[in-house]
Amino acid sequence: MSTAPALTTIDSAQLQVLENVVPGPSENVALADSLGRVLSTPVICDLDYPPFDKAMMDGYAVRSADLSAAGSGDRSLRVAGQIAAGTEARHVLGAGQATQINTGAPVPDGADAVVRVEDTELSGDGSTVTVKTAVSPQQHIDPRARYVSAGTEVLEAGTRMGPAQITAAAAAGADTVAVYAKPRVAILATGDELVPFTQRPTGARIRNSNGIMLQSLVSECGAEPIDLGMAGDDKDLLTERIRQTHGFESVGFADVLCITGGISVGAFDYVPEVLESCGVRIVFRKVAIKPGKPALFGIGPSGTLVFGLPGNPVSGYVVFRLLVGPALEARQGRAGRLPTAISARLMGHCKATTDRQSYWPVRVHSDSEGTLRAERLAWAGSGDPFGFCRANALMVRQPHSPAAEPGDVVGVIPLELL
Amino acid sequence: MSTAPALTTIDSAQLQVLENVVPGPSENVALADSLGRVLSTPVICDLDYPPFDKAMMDGYAVRSADLSAAGSGDRSLRVAGQIAAGTEARHVLGAGQATQINTGAPVPDGADAVVRVEDTELSGDGSTVTVKTAVSPQQHIDPRARYVSAGTEVLEAGTRMGPAQITAAAAAGADTVAVYAKPRVAILATGDELVPFTQRPTGARIRNSNGIMLQSLVSECGAEPIDLGMAGDDKDLLTERIRQTHGFESVGFADVLCITGGISVGAFDYVPEVLESCGVRIVFRKVAIKPGKPALFGIGPSGTLVFGLPGNPVSGYVVFRLLVGPALEARQGRAGRLPTAISARLMGHCKATTDRQSYWPVRVHSDSEGTLRAERLAWAGSGDPFGFCRANALMVRQPHSPAAEPGDVVGVIPLELL
Repeated sequence: MSTAPALTTIDSAQLQVLENVVPGPSENVALADSLGRVLSTPVICDLDYPPFDKAMMDGYAVRSADLSAAGSGDRSLRVAGQIAAGTEARHVLGAGQATQINTGAPVPDGADAVVRVEDTELSGDGSTVTVKTAVSPQQHIDPRARYVSAGTEVLEAGTRMGPAQITAAAAAGADTVAVYAKPRVAILATGDELVPFTQRPTGARIRNSNGIMLQSLVSECGAEPIDLGMAGDDKDLLTERIRQTHGFESVGFADVLCITGGISVGAFDYVPEVLESCGVRIVFRKVAIKPGKPALFGIGPSGTLVFGLPGNPVSGYVVFRLLVGPALEARQGRAGRLPTAISARLMGHCKATTDRQSYWPVRVHSDSEGTLRAERLAWAGSGDPFGFCRANALMVRQPHSPAAEPGDVVGVIPLELL
Repeated sequence: MSTAPALTTIDSAQLQVLENVVPGPSENVALADSLGRVLSTPVICDLDYPPFDKAMMDGYAVRSADLSAAGSGDRSLRVAGQIAAGTEARHVLGAGQATQINTGAPVPDGADAVVRVEDTELSGDGSTVTVKTAVSPQQHIDPRARYVSAGTEVLEAGTRMGPAQITAAAAAGADTVAVYAKPRVAILATGDELVPFTQRPTGARIRNSNGIMLQSLVSECGAEPIDLGMAGDDKDLLTERIRQTHGFESVGFADVLCITGGISVGAFDYVPEVLESCGVRIVFRKVAIKPGKPALFGIGPSGTLVFGLPGNPVSGYVVFRLLVGPALEARQGRAGRLPTAISARLMGHCKATTDRQSYWPVRVHSDSEGTLRAERLAWAGSGDPFGFCRANALMVRQPHSPAAEPGDVVGVIPLELL
């Protein structure tokens, strides 16, 4: 029965984790395969964009000097040719002429403005067009290089590639991109009480839902889960599995090892001792959060980041979000991406907190005024995955906070796209 | 030169799309492969959870009647055995006895409370334990079926599977789950100006960045992109490609067809006419939004949902988020999941809007008080994918809104997890 180690604050714990993460290696992938990956090298645009003076509307390319203020003078122009998108003008626009032009087509030499088709009237024989509005120079034209010039950095290293970023990279000429390799995260569950979730437990057993939970969380972070299965409460098996992740055995080097269970103060909580016997330097063992207090962090002999997560599923989930997720971001060149809280109005009541920072599942939605509302959910605590799975955010409350009432402002960390 | 069709409001456009979507077929997948998929059938828990009266702390199982108020009377108990998680108690706890117990282990018959190890003191020979705190019945015990009883629905149909939902399904005994089939979304780019993004454009050409943009957006929605490539401005090729998506040809049936370009009012905007010749009933052709006005929606002869998206990348992106994304949600049993705005404080200025609802890229972050701040980005308009790709949200402004100043409240639609 060991003495309880001192509690580390969550801020300090996050800092200690981030101090020990260096960005991983990088690799080249086809742009089409880059969704969710993080750039390790910036993307540079290889040409001026637009590459030519581009019409932004369907209508007519004109010389603005030909057209005086709306309504006065002669506003009819002779129609000289047509430029579709994708074709280059073969003529220079002369005085008194207009060229029919489509959105995206290059504006012909001589023209300095585009008039929208809605603002014109074509003669019956199609030979002349009358302009019905005032025209100013450069209107409805995006001049060459307006967005960027060739050689400009358009996506910086550390950018996570979503659809908008992939679009920009495609326009910039990046058919492949350099991204951080997916961090390899080994996952191991301890505890003799566990059976695989595909089995029906009997007696004192329960299903191992932590393994698949961590695999999903790891995948969602753009990392690669490596399932090491379950080690029961067998110290030798645990030792063997931990050693594998150091890169000396079949599993190969793991950037991160997540072990669930066995890290508390009970008689069977031998994980810290086994980790130390495997050469893991333990950085902290307890964090002042609820749930999730028995959260362990250490560094393996080959640099593997080792996380001991509580066996209760919600505790493990919270510790992953607060500590493991930021480590995976940092390993992909995104240090300092810590979960941050957004203000919401509480629906329901909330009791005072203890000396630990508290995280509770809530359902957040935006009301008709755009104000975020955080609804408390029926939830039986850190062992209850069912109440928890209706949450789309964690409500965060500081240590020693008083009870909160409906309408009070609370902080929420979104778990999904709101 | 056709007369400009009337503008549909965005609310009406979304309603008309949703009216035409029915949920698609379902399929069974392994739980491990369900991340991001949507349940078509609820998940029912197959056992009581917890399956037994479970200790929630490491410590001792006791009879609360043995222990009077803290500090008074005899509070020493004889240590009778040990129950690790995963093992069943072989004895009934007698009067004056305590059993060492671990978190997750079943509480022995006779015991009605658990005392934390931190609140006890064990005698030197390990034979007796002294309890240092008050003990109330049921403390630190999660009784059998406290979270759910066998037969309870724990995840409803329409739930998108994230890590927390997968954890709950694993605990409930779902090794496979029934999910909606991924909607098949055919993607086709029109316009003679386009070259594949892997090529360097010359003359009046530009890269096709819309194809890969839509593929990424479709994948992010949990749907399956089918790349039909580019049809240039060739009506015959366009006709052939559209007919393929009706299911009569090699591509097979597509739930959704997205065509970019060719839908405006210019001389080369023949897409609506070709769609009609292919039997597509056009529902609306213009939406009162900026960017994205020339947004078309129709229904193919086999029920394919057909979207015509503007050729400018940001316009296409916005129309996808506002119309195609909600259709893909509805096709997966999640009707009415429309993008909703959250209030944020504007950083920077914003000009008055026209008669169309406006969407601008912004970068949103939570300040130290938890207030969302929306930062305007340098952006050259709907043709500029580079300014846009630094956004993590769209700022929404109603038609005819006045200019907005720093500190004003504006609505933002997040594009990523905040």
